[in-house]
Amino acid sequence: MSDLEIAQKNEADEMQKITTIGAKVGLSEDDLEQYGPYKAKLTLATLKRLQDKPTGKLVLVTSINPTPAGEGKSTVTIGLGDALNRLHKKAMIALREPSMGPVMGIKGGATGGGYAQVVPMEDINLHFTGDMHALTTANDTLAALIDNHIQQGNELDFDPRRITWKRALDINDRALRQIVIGLGGPWQGVPRQDGFDITVASELMAILCLSRDIDDLKARLARIVVGYTSDRKPITVADLHVVGAIAMLLRDAIKPNLVQTLEHTPTLIHGGPFANIAHGCNSILATHSAMALSDITVTEAGFGADLGGEKFMDINTAALAKTPDAAVIVATIRALKYNGGVALDDLTTENLDALRKGFANLKRHIDGMRHFGVPLVVSINEFTTDTPAEMQLLQQLCAEEGITAVPTTVWADGGAGGIDLAQEVLKALDQPAHFTPLYTPEQSVEDKMTAIVQKMYGGKDVELSKKAKTNLRTIKRNGWDKLPICMAKTQYSLSDDAKALGAPTDFTVHVRELVPRLGAGFIVALTGNVLTMPGLPKHPAALDMDVDENGKITGLF
Amino acid sequence: MSDLEIAQKNEADEMQKITTIGAKVGLSEDDLEQYGPYKAKLTLATLKRLQDKPTGKLVLVTSINPTPAGEGKSTVTIGLGDALNRLHKKAMIALREPSMGPVMGIKGGATGGGYAQVVPMEDINLHFTGDMHALTTANDTLAALIDNHIQQGNELDFDPRRITWKRALDINDRALRQIVIGLGGPWQGVPRQDGFDITVASELMAILCLSRDIDDLKARLARIVVGYTSDRKPITVADLHVVGAIAMLLRDAIKPNLVQTLEHTPTLIHGGPFANIAHGCNSILATHSAMALSDITVTEAGFGADLGGEKFMDINTAALAKTPDAAVIVATIRALKYNGGVALDDLTTENLDALRKGFANLKRHIDGMRHFGVPLVVSINEFTTDTPAEMQLLQQLCAEEGITAVPTTVWADGGAGGIDLAQEVLKALDQPAHFTPLYTPEQSVEDKMTAIVQKMYGGKDVELSKKAKTNLRTIKRNGWDKLPICMAKTQYSLSDDAKALGAPTDFTVHVRELVPRLGAGFIVALTGNVLTMPGLPKHPAALDMDVDENGKITGLF
Repeated sequence: MSDLEIAQKNEADEMQKITTIGAKVGLSEDDLEQYGPYKAKLTLATLKRLQDKPTGKLVLVTSINPTPAGEGKSTVTIGLGDALNRLHKKAMIALREPSMGPVMGIKGGATGGGYAQVVPMEDINLHFTGDMHALTTANDTLAALIDNHIQQGNELDFDPRRITWKRALDINDRALRQIVIGLGGPWQGVPRQDGFDITVASELMAILCLSRDIDDLKARLARIVVGYTSDRKPITVADLHVVGAIAMLLRDAIKPNLVQTLEHTPTLIHGGPFANIAHGCNSILATHSAMALSDITVTEAGFGADLGGEKFMDINTAALAKTPDAAVIVATIRALKYNGGVALDDLTTENLDALRKGFANLKRHIDGMRHFGVPLVVSINEFTTDTPAEMQLLQQLCAEEGITAVPTTVWADGGAGGIDLAQEVLKALDQPAHFTPLYTPEQSVEDKMTAIVQKMYGGKDVELSKKAKTNLRTIKRNGWDKLPICMAKTQYSLSDDAKALGAPTDFTVHVRELVPRLGAGFIVALTGNVLTMPGLPKHPAALDMDVDENGKITGLF
Repeated sequence: MSDLEIAQKNEADEMQKITTIGAKVGLSEDDLEQYGPYKAKLTLATLKRLQDKPTGKLVLVTSINPTPAGEGKSTVTIGLGDALNRLHKKAMIALREPSMGPVMGIKGGATGGGYAQVVPMEDINLHFTGDMHALTTANDTLAALIDNHIQQGNELDFDPRRITWKRALDINDRALRQIVIGLGGPWQGVPRQDGFDITVASELMAILCLSRDIDDLKARLARIVVGYTSDRKPITVADLHVVGAIAMLLRDAIKPNLVQTLEHTPTLIHGGPFANIAHGCNSILATHSAMALSDITVTEAGFGADLGGEKFMDINTAALAKTPDAAVIVATIRALKYNGGVALDDLTTENLDALRKGFANLKRHIDGMRHFGVPLVVSINEFTTDTPAEMQLLQQLCAEEGITAVPTTVWADGGAGGIDLAQEVLKALDQPAHFTPLYTPEQSVEDKMTAIVQKMYGGKDVELSKKAKTNLRTIKRNGWDKLPICMAKTQYSLSDDAKALGAPTDFTVHVRELVPRLGAGFIVALTGNVLTMPGLPKHPAALDMDVDENGKITGLF
């Protein structure tokens, strides 16, 4: 059965009312704004009440560099949460919400897989409770207000060539990457170059995910730099007097969404920045609420430890006011062989040499995560094509590095397939964590980037393009250089070259642009060829989707 | 108190649970998908069940040419529904959902006013249940799939200069009217001219509003013409193989939304095409469901009888399989004086001459509506600045035309202010209706447009631009000329010149473009300077909006 079929069978037979799910963690009907019977948002009053409650422990799930099909990190996160509940621990899960752009492009959801899924999966993967759409609308309303300001006299003296606020859509649409707007004469706006990012790359997404409450949201919105004057002074959303309007458009989107796993574990899904082009972690409101409602919260950070993992530690923990008590690195034998040089089509054949070679990638992620001083466990997310010899070799290689690697079969078995992993995680939670970030705010922007490249990627140094150097001068001139760095980098390699698999050494990371995100509170470093607006493939997944007269969806995954 | 303050006081003190509202018309909890405690969608199963039920009577509310502040047509529609319930009739209301674009531009909601409002008004005016966002996403996903098809080899042989499917956003953004996309080299798409319409002008909005069920939706989507080949053959959504995907994105949006008035009258709000650039009527699924659930359904069509009124009769009734049993024309003394030549700032001063002169506008709308053979009532939506002499004159002028004009004070008094109107409407419902459309499908496109111009607008003829003539040849060559016409025209005048107030005569309507909408099943005739993407004013309403830490919104209206 496909992931969708497994989910739909469960949705028809076994899903519990969301009020029942909420009740498991002490949420009353009044705490929930229902979106149909199986989805709900936590009310603002509830979020306030949870703000001062003592919090449980936090487990961060991250991974290695994936194959294009992914490593099942969400699947393991969900299975681990289910397994902890099977062990009678009060555990919750906090995940990011899927972006619809990739859903229409390449098959593969963001709601787990097999018997470790969150449901209702069609809803979560499509419009869900409208958060992504609210962000798109807020982003593009701000853009319209900027262009309207210029059209109506430009009192703030925007330099139309130096507007940094781009438009956004939750769609993979390469044709919108570089556009010219405002054509057609004086009544149709001022012509200028512009472009659309995918919504998950919008600074508003980062802000939504990092805001403690509506007041914090407004303070962050006010600080967003949308462009520069003709004498290069920054212009903010506060200068435009639209902080209130943009915050109003995000009033509901800021509330975390409650759903359930197939095994009815309460799960908060909220905010969806990609880890390759954004900070890659779900909202701190969701993670904090889960921690306040449960004893153990399992959360994930997007892509590998080099991307979401690092950003969770160096960016997210500050806003969350909490560091992880343990971390899980998800690896698959498939992906390690892929990193060891095996072609995608040959991954189902046993290949111990390639596995040994590819292990260097996992080792690099282990070494990177060890810098943060948090107890670590490796989860080997099993595929039916893995051989016993491969499994044994991988466990042995991990043991040589002094780390336990636990086979996990949550795709096939749900929480039952994650019991061993859960036991190991519980042991890790009993160990002390000594959190240390990779860098301190006082370090220079260059030093912070170098620290990430050397300690997490295993590379040599960074090289700034001419444009990035100009950006850096602007950043320093405005005193923004104390902010942390959000690296935008390919997820397929530790380096900025998607084709350099395994554990490349001695490489330089090329920073082509530095984008100050004052509202989010970090500087985005765009490296290599990473794109903030994806495209669709030759045969988009959309071509195989359908819905019948009863609303039943097919071909989604 | 402002409309927002009145609504918020009620929302805090008196709103009933949406399940209570549903129960009034026989809807169980299982019939409703709740969106928070005060909004719900009707399930697809419920819609099916209602399809074969006998239906009650239908009252259409329309109006004269408005001032820029509007005539309170929605307010009267809501107040009339409330009044009918006060008279112990089982009445429901069916309205369009507001577009967010204008909300951020000019103050003034689409949820009624004063004590004749639908609530929760902030939700309805902002993201509501996500229908508008689903339409935007579906529209722009289709656009991305078209450009991706061209990028990936263009098997269907699209002529990039003849793509007719535009992108859309629910935002007033003039800078997106005319753009160039696909810049940046071979990996960033194929450069071509494009543009964004406001979502309410998207053909998908019309299709959503005219579809009987998901199968009908899919059949209509399949017929959409998105462009032409290099030898000018039409290319459809069916040719692209994405009917299923686009329908999937509209699976929830197709379900009507249940809310309540301040007096707890069950109200369905669904679909929001503008009547100046689209067909201007809420969904037939909502109107049909209301008719199946109640004895009397009150619905409105956007702007004046020349726009939404005519389109309701000539386009909507066919899909609805029902014609109105009575119609109400809403007029205000303010707007008639405005149509009589008084400046906006002077409308509060008594001016009988101007009223008499402006009455010609109301008379033109009465005459136009009389062509349809439906019993008519005039509602005079009272303002505190109206004088007794003005009221008496207007009633007398109407009486001379053989039509009853009923003063209505629903803004100030809610349903109590609409009792007289309701009594008169009940009398009208007892009269026989002999429905006659303005034209028949067999007439030529030119004759159909001329019929509308002469019978509804009181004009002389139509003149086609060179472009419109080319469009017409395409329409005839493809056999699309039997479709009805959807006129896109300024709402401020009976003519295509927004400044020609009152009752202009002997005018020509200039058709600059004819756009075949095969999915919606009509041909849009763009006249004069009417724009399918509005702009923002110098001081957008957004500048005055705010939300506090408890989520309370201010400055919305």
